Amino acid sequence: MNNAKEFEHYSLNLKVKVIPIVAGKFISILHEDTAKKLGILPLDRAELVHWEKNKSIVTVVDTTTSIIKRDEIGIFEDVRKKLKVNEGKKLRVSGVGTPESLEFVKKKMRGGTLSEQEIKKIVEDFGENKLSEIEASAFMTSVFINGYTLNETVAMARALTENGITIKLDVEPVVDKHSIGGINGRATMLIVPIVAAGGLFIPKTSSRSITSAAGTADAMEVLANVELSAEQIKSITEKHGGVIAWGGSLDLAPVDDKIIKIERPLSMDPRGQVIASVLAKKASVGSKFVVVDIPIGPGLKVVDREEGKELAGLFIKVGRKLGMKVEAVLTDGSQPSGSAFGSALEARHVLRILEGKEFDSLAQKSCELAGVLFELVGRKKQGKGCDYAKKLLDSGQALKKFREIIKAQGKRIDKAKDVPMAPHKIEVRAKKSGEISFIDVKKMINIAKIAGAPSEKLSGVLLNVEVGQKVEAGDLLFEIFAENKRKLELAEKYALSVKAVQLEKIILERFI
Amino acid sequence: MNNAKEFEHYSLNLKVKVIPIVAGKFISILHEDTAKKLGILPLDRAELVHWEKNKSIVTVVDTTTSIIKRDEIGIFEDVRKKLKVNEGKKLRVSGVGTPESLEFVKKKMRGGTLSEQEIKKIVEDFGENKLSEIEASAFMTSVFINGYTLNETVAMARALTENGITIKLDVEPVVDKHSIGGINGRATMLIVPIVAAGGLFIPKTSSRSITSAAGTADAMEVLANVELSAEQIKSITEKHGGVIAWGGSLDLAPVDDKIIKIERPLSMDPRGQVIASVLAKKASVGSKFVVVDIPIGPGLKVVDREEGKELAGLFIKVGRKLGMKVEAVLTDGSQPSGSAFGSALEARHVLRILEGKEFDSLAQKSCELAGVLFELVGRKKQGKGCDYAKKLLDSGQALKKFREIIKAQGKRIDKAKDVPMAPHKIEVRAKKSGEISFIDVKKMINIAKIAGAPSEKLSGVLLNVEVGQKVEAGDLLFEIFAENKRKLELAEKYALSVKAVQLEKIILERFI
Repeated sequence: MNNAKEFEHYSLNLKVKVIPIVAGKFISILHEDTAKKLGILPLDRAELVHWEKNKSIVTVVDTTTSIIKRDEIGIFEDVRKKLKVNEGKKLRVSGVGTPESLEFVKKKMRGGTLSEQEIKKIVEDFGENKLSEIEASAFMTSVFINGYTLNETVAMARALTENGITIKLDVEPVVDKHSIGGINGRATMLIVPIVAAGGLFIPKTSSRSITSAAGTADAMEVLANVELSAEQIKSITEKHGGVIAWGGSLDLAPVDDKIIKIERPLSMDPRGQVIASVLAKKASVGSKFVVVDIPIGPGLKVVDREEGKELAGLFIKVGRKLGMKVEAVLTDGSQPSGSAFGSALEARHVLRILEGKEFDSLAQKSCELAGVLFELVGRKKQGKGCDYAKKLLDSGQALKKFREIIKAQGKRIDKAKDVPMAPHKIEVRAKKSGEISFIDVKKMINIAKIAGAPSEKLSGVLLNVEVGQKVEAGDLLFEIFAENKRKLELAEKYALSVKAVQLEKIILERFI
Repeated sequence: MNNAKEFEHYSLNLKVKVIPIVAGKFISILHEDTAKKLGILPLDRAELVHWEKNKSIVTVVDTTTSIIKRDEIGIFEDVRKKLKVNEGKKLRVSGVGTPESLEFVKKKMRGGTLSEQEIKKIVEDFGENKLSEIEASAFMTSVFINGYTLNETVAMARALTENGITIKLDVEPVVDKHSIGGINGRATMLIVPIVAAGGLFIPKTSSRSITSAAGTADAMEVLANVELSAEQIKSITEKHGGVIAWGGSLDLAPVDDKIIKIERPLSMDPRGQVIASVLAKKASVGSKFVVVDIPIGPGLKVVDREEGKELAGLFIKVGRKLGMKVEAVLTDGSQPSGSAFGSALEARHVLRILEGKEFDSLAQKSCELAGVLFELVGRKKQGKGCDYAKKLLDSGQALKKFREIIKAQGKRIDKAKDVPMAPHKIEVRAKKSGEISFIDVKKMINIAKIAGAPSEKLSGVLLNVEVGQKVEAGDLLFEIFAENKRKLELAEKYALSVKAVQLEKIILERFI
C-alpha cells in the first residue's frame, strides 16, 4: 500500500478498432481524452489485456481526436495478430509504470555488474515492450562501453534462450554451425548435407539478408520452402539429419532479434552480446556441439588474428558454461567465399559443388568446418574430420542427402541446371592484361544489390576470377545478372565507376 | 561517383492520404510494395519533399497492404502540419541512407572527443529525424558514461541554440533564471515581477509539468495566457520588463526537447548536457546574465554540496565561453519550496506573497535569487541585491508589475481571492501531538497527482505546517483539493497510507 502506482493507475474497457497498418512494433491509439484519463502521454506505454484469450501485450500509445472514439482503442495489425482479437471486442487498457528492469539498465550505465536475475528481467521486460527501444539502446551502449563479465555473458545467453520457445530433438548428437558476419557463398548449405550424410543432426535456422546480396534463408528458398514450424524442424531433422529453415518466423530467442535491430544501425556488437546471441540461438534448438567460423580480414567484424583468438577463447568458455562443446575456427575473410552473389546464383553454385562440377575455396572451407564437427562429437580423430567430409562430398552422399532434405522441405529445385537465370546479363571484361590483385567484396555486394538483390532472387553477380590469377585484355572478370533492365544498367554504371576487381600488371610486363 | 548510395536511391511521387493521428513523432505509411520499390524496410526512414511549399521532412516508415494504395503515402497529423500539405497533393518520397553524424555518435561511443562541427551535425541530424531515437539514446548514454569536455559542452550549447529560432531584444540588460529540478512553489512567478520592477528585462520561458504537480507554465496559465509567439515574448518583455510564457510551442532549441525526451525515462542527465541544455535556452532569448538555482537535498538531482559546487563552477565557465555572466546558487532543497502543490493553488500562493499576505521560505528564496541578478548586472553592490528585491516586493511594486504582465499576456485572474478553489476538499489532521520532523515532498506531489494534478488545474495539496513546528492532536496538517470526488477519495486513502508528514514526539514528552 506504500506505492503511489496502485492509486494512480486506472484501467478502462475499450472497444477494439483495427487499423490495418504493420508498424514493425506494437502501437495502439487512444482518443486524447481517454489517454488523459488513463494518465498516458503520447509515446507512453499501455498494457492491453484480452481476457477471453488470456493474452496481454504492452504497446506504445499514440493519440488522436478524430478517428478513434472515447470508448475505443485503435490497434495496429501487429497488435491484433498478437492478441488474437477482432474488431468490436473489448480490451482492458491501463498505463504502464516504470518497469523494474530500468534500475538494472541504470546500474549497467553506472558501470555495475548485473546478476543473472537482473539480466533475465531486462530481457523479459524488453521482450514485453516494457523497456522501450530508447532504454534498450542505452543498455546496449552501456554494454558496448563497459563490457560484460563472463558470468553476465552466460546469463544473457540463458535469458535469451529461456525467453523463447525451444526445440528438443529425440536424437543425438545435435550439432550446429555459425559464421560471424559471413557475407556470401553459403557454406551452411554445404555443411548441413555433409554432416547429415555423416550421421549427425543439424537443425539449422538461418536469416534473410539485411545488408548482403543474399542470406542463407534467401538462397535456400530458391530450392525449397524455408518457412517451417518448430514441429517441422524437429521432425525433418530427426528423420533426415538436417534442415535449413528461416529463423525469423519462429520464436527462438525472439528478444535477440529485437536487440540486433537496436545494434544494427550503430554497428555496435559488444563481444559479449555477440557470443550470447549466437549461443542462445544454438541452445534454443538443443545443439550440444557447435563450430563457430570467424572470418578475419579488413573491413570485417574481426580485423586481426589476435582479436579473433580472444573471441574464439571466449566462445569456448561461455559454451562450456552453457553445457556445449564449442570450437571456433579462424578463416581467411579477405577474399570472397565462393564466386556467387545473389540468392539464385548462390543456390546454383552450392548445387554445382555438391554435383561435383566445381571445387573451390568455399567447398574447401565447408569441408573443414564440417570436419571440425565430426571431430568435436568424437566420430573422427583430430585432423581426420575434413578428409571424411570430403569423402562424403566426393561420393555424392552429401548431394543425395541434400536432395532428401530439399524434398522434405517442399522441393522447388534440386539440380543446378534447373536454377533459373536472370533474363538480363552484362559481362564485365578486363581492359588490359595483368594479374588480379584485389577483389572488393563490399563493392561486389553493392553491384548485386543495385542489380536488384536480395529482393529480386535472380539478380546478382558471378565472379569469374580469383586473386592472383593472370588475365588477358578481353577476359571475362564477372557477369552481372538482373531481373530488371534499368537496374542492370545502373549496376553496370556503378561497377565501371568503382574498382571492384583490381588489376596490377604482372612484373614481366613492367618494362613498358 | 564512388558511392553506391547514388545508385540505390530511387524516389517516387506519391499522393497524400492524411491519417488523423498524432503520433508524437513523424511517421508515414507506405504500401508494402512501394516501400520495397524504394528499398525501405519498416522502421527505416524516408524523406518527404513538398516542392510547392519548399518543405521537406524525414519520417519513420510503417507499411501496410490495405489502407494505403501503391501510389499513395499515408501521413500522420504531425507530418501534415509540418509539411503544410493537404490530402491528394503529391510528395516526392525517397529512402534515407545512413546520416553522416552516425560516425560521430560511434566516435563518442568509443570514447573520442568531438569537434564543434561534429556536435553541430549530430544536433542537426537528430533535429531532422535523420538520427533515430535509438541512435540518439546511444549518443546520450555514451555522453553519460564518457562525459563531455568543456569545449564539447560549449559546442553542444551553441548547436542547440543555432538549431532553433532566437529572440533578439532591443533592450538591456536581459537576465534569466533557471532552477535545476525545481519541484513546487513557483519562485519564477515571483522573480520575474521583482526583477522587472527593478528595471531588468526577463523573457522567461517555462515548461509544463511532466512529473510534478504543476509546472510554471501550468500555474501561470491559471492567471493568463502562456501560449505566446516569439513576437509577443519580445514585445511584452520590451514594454513591461518581463513575461512568463510556455516554451513548448516555440521553436527555441527544439532539439533540446527531443534530447530531454530521450533522457527522461532513464533519468540520465549527464552534467555537461544539463548545462548545455539550460544555457542554450537562455542564449535563445538573448540572456546575458543568468542566475542558476541548484537545490541540494536527498532524492534531488544534486545530492550534496560538493557536487553542487562543481556543477556551479562548470556553469560559470561554460557561461563565460558563451558570452554570459552566470552565477549559480546552492539552495536547500530538502524542504518543500512553498506550501502549495497544484496549478491553481500555487498561482494563488504566489499572488498572496505579492499581495503582502504571506512571506515564507519561497518568498525569501525568490528575493535572494532576484538579488543575485541585480548584483550580476551591477545595479546593486555585492550583498545588497536581496534587500532591494525585498523592497520591491514589500512596496507593492512587484505586484503592480505582475498585474501589468498578466494584463499584457491576456489577463484571466490577478487577485489571490479570485483564484477558484476546487469543489471537493478533505482536511488531514494530526492524530496526536508532537513536532513535525519531516515532510516528504515526493509523496506530497503523489497526493496532488492522485487528486488530479496537473491536468486538473484546481486539484492539489495545501500544506499547513513546516518542519520543526509543534502540533497538537487535531491540528490541520494539510488539505487535499480535487475537481473529482472519486479522485479525492483515492488521494486521501493514499495520503493516510504513507507518511507524507512525519511527527516525532518532542523531547519534553518522552517520559512515557
